[in-house]
Amino acid sequence: MTDPAAAYKQFRDDLLQHGLLISMGVDGLFGRSGTFERIVEGLNAAIGAAGDPDRPEVMRFPPGIGSLQLEKSGYLRNFPHLAGTVASFSGGDDDHRVLLDSLSKGGDWSGTQRPTGVALTPAACYGVYPVVASRGRVPAQGALVDVYTWCFRHEPSIDPARMQMFRQREHVRIGSAEQIESFRETWMERARSLVESLGLPLAIEVASDPFFGRAGRILASSQREKSLKFELLVPIVAAAPRTACVSFNDHRDLFGRAWAIEAFAGDTAHTACVGFGVERLTLALLRHHGFVPGDWPAGVRNVLGL
Amino acid sequence: MTDPAAAYKQFRDDLLQHGLLISMGVDGLFGRSGTFERIVEGLNAAIGAAGDPDRPEVMRFPPGIGSLQLEKSGYLRNFPHLAGTVASFSGGDDDHRVLLDSLSKGGDWSGTQRPTGVALTPAACYGVYPVVASRGRVPAQGALVDVYTWCFRHEPSIDPARMQMFRQREHVRIGSAEQIESFRETWMERARSLVESLGLPLAIEVASDPFFGRAGRILASSQREKSLKFELLVPIVAAAPRTACVSFNDHRDLFGRAWAIEAFAGDTAHTACVGFGVERLTLALLRHHGFVPGDWPAGVRNVLGL
Repeated sequence: MTDPAAAYKQFRDDLLQHGLLISMGVDGLFGRSGTFERIVEGLNAAIGAAGDPDRPEVMRFPPGIGSLQLEKSGYLRNFPHLAGTVASFSGGDDDHRVLLDSLSKGGDWSGTQRPTGVALTPAACYGVYPVVASRGRVPAQGALVDVYTWCFRHEPSIDPARMQMFRQREHVRIGSAEQIESFRETWMERARSLVESLGLPLAIEVASDPFFGRAGRILASSQREKSLKFELLVPIVAAAPRTACVSFNDHRDLFGRAWAIEAFAGDTAHTACVGFGVERLTLALLRHHGFVPGDWPAGVRNVLGL
Repeated sequence: MTDPAAAYKQFRDDLLQHGLLISMGVDGLFGRSGTFERIVEGLNAAIGAAGDPDRPEVMRFPPGIGSLQLEKSGYLRNFPHLAGTVASFSGGDDDHRVLLDSLSKGGDWSGTQRPTGVALTPAACYGVYPVVASRGRVPAQGALVDVYTWCFRHEPSIDPARMQMFRQREHVRIGSAEQIESFRETWMERARSLVESLGLPLAIEVASDPFFGRAGRILASSQREKSLKFELLVPIVAAAPRTACVSFNDHRDLFGRAWAIEAFAGDTAHTACVGFGVERLTLALLRHHGFVPGDWPAGVRNVLGL
């Protein structure tokens, strides 16, 4: 068995050499070719089609949210190492001279940067909760939202499937514990059937989030024990662990409490989301069917409209 | 004539009330409804169709680039007040306790954030230049790239057309001064004809970039003098200045020098870009034709595939 690091590098180099990804000089930041994007768009359309029967409300968010929302969500507490916050220069002409001086000397200019109140979105669903909360009590049928967002996680890696900036297509359910449960079951079946139709090997397994530090290990093991998170795993790089391409998350009333979302029965709403990592699925397809989508099996191309 | 501030607010409230934009609690950050996005997609497809005859290379970049690239581009020097850089927590368990303490007291936790080497993309074309530079001498026919990217500019505003996060569809030309000139003329005609077909009033005028500070005023006036920047302006909010919806930029050899891009003749390449602000055009359409796209003139809907 080869070293995972060497295998990651080889796969990354293959993708760069075939012009599917474009180097940006930073681990985990890549440009995408037109071919790569057509696969992403095909996946995105297929995921949308799987969810359409439920008539979700469509919301599209920019790659950022207010820092206060990120704080409120608990993300900064639980995943500070992954969270990205946005800083900018806010000085006058004198401070500008300091910045120019530092730039011209190749010095460290980070001291000129101040927080802007904007943070980067860590997962597509984070924009949804405050919006649903602001609408008052959730209706009897609950709420169902379809989102698609660029996300950021600060985890530079040579594994092309672990990007710092990537897109998630999510469906988000807000309502009673029963509505959440049935949503998650429905989507586990839909995701399994979609990924099978793409000719990819898969397994759905209990998982946990990468909580920070010592205290985080306890949170992660409790999450596993309660089966709050499942992942759909696909082997991408042979010598490496399988890659989570879809995740199914039951947040219980965590976000309901954070934003005081009132369920129809008057108690705190429960929430859940199913998130598809469209870049990861694209990479899995390229790995299993080859670097030329025109040569993929007809059935797979058909699912993706390629 | 009413106060521009009041007019901006009124327009923003109308957009929120019609559910076209969704408040995110931060000036200049908005969610978009499915209807809003269908207009954006229609515009994006129409811009793509206008450029297709030239067979540009498609590149798609994430919302961020390496901080070093932002530095190299001169953006941090010239527009430090607009640039966004990404910071994250990089401490251990002890620092985490400091962060948790600050979060629980509602204190300022920005001191726990360190630069990540990632910055936000200020304009769609910034990803392109280092990639083209890395390929060596530009071929005789020059290079032509089609990009579409989420951009960030730190300028919180109540004007819904001045968002902090928005998308630009750009075509970027790299080659000789003559190739640049002819590219810019072609696109001024294409943009004029596209925006006219959308039933929007427009004017194309010489413009300048919002360079920072006292020194910046000199740069801006030199840019105007040399007619290096033109903007396609559309009136959106009646009591306010017209809004730049498309810009046509001749960078001379500024980016060619920054990244050492060699033109076919062996001298430094010139570059130009035409950038469409798809949110701004969407807002202009909503303002001029009303908040219900189904009621828009048939010709306009036809151009957008709505």
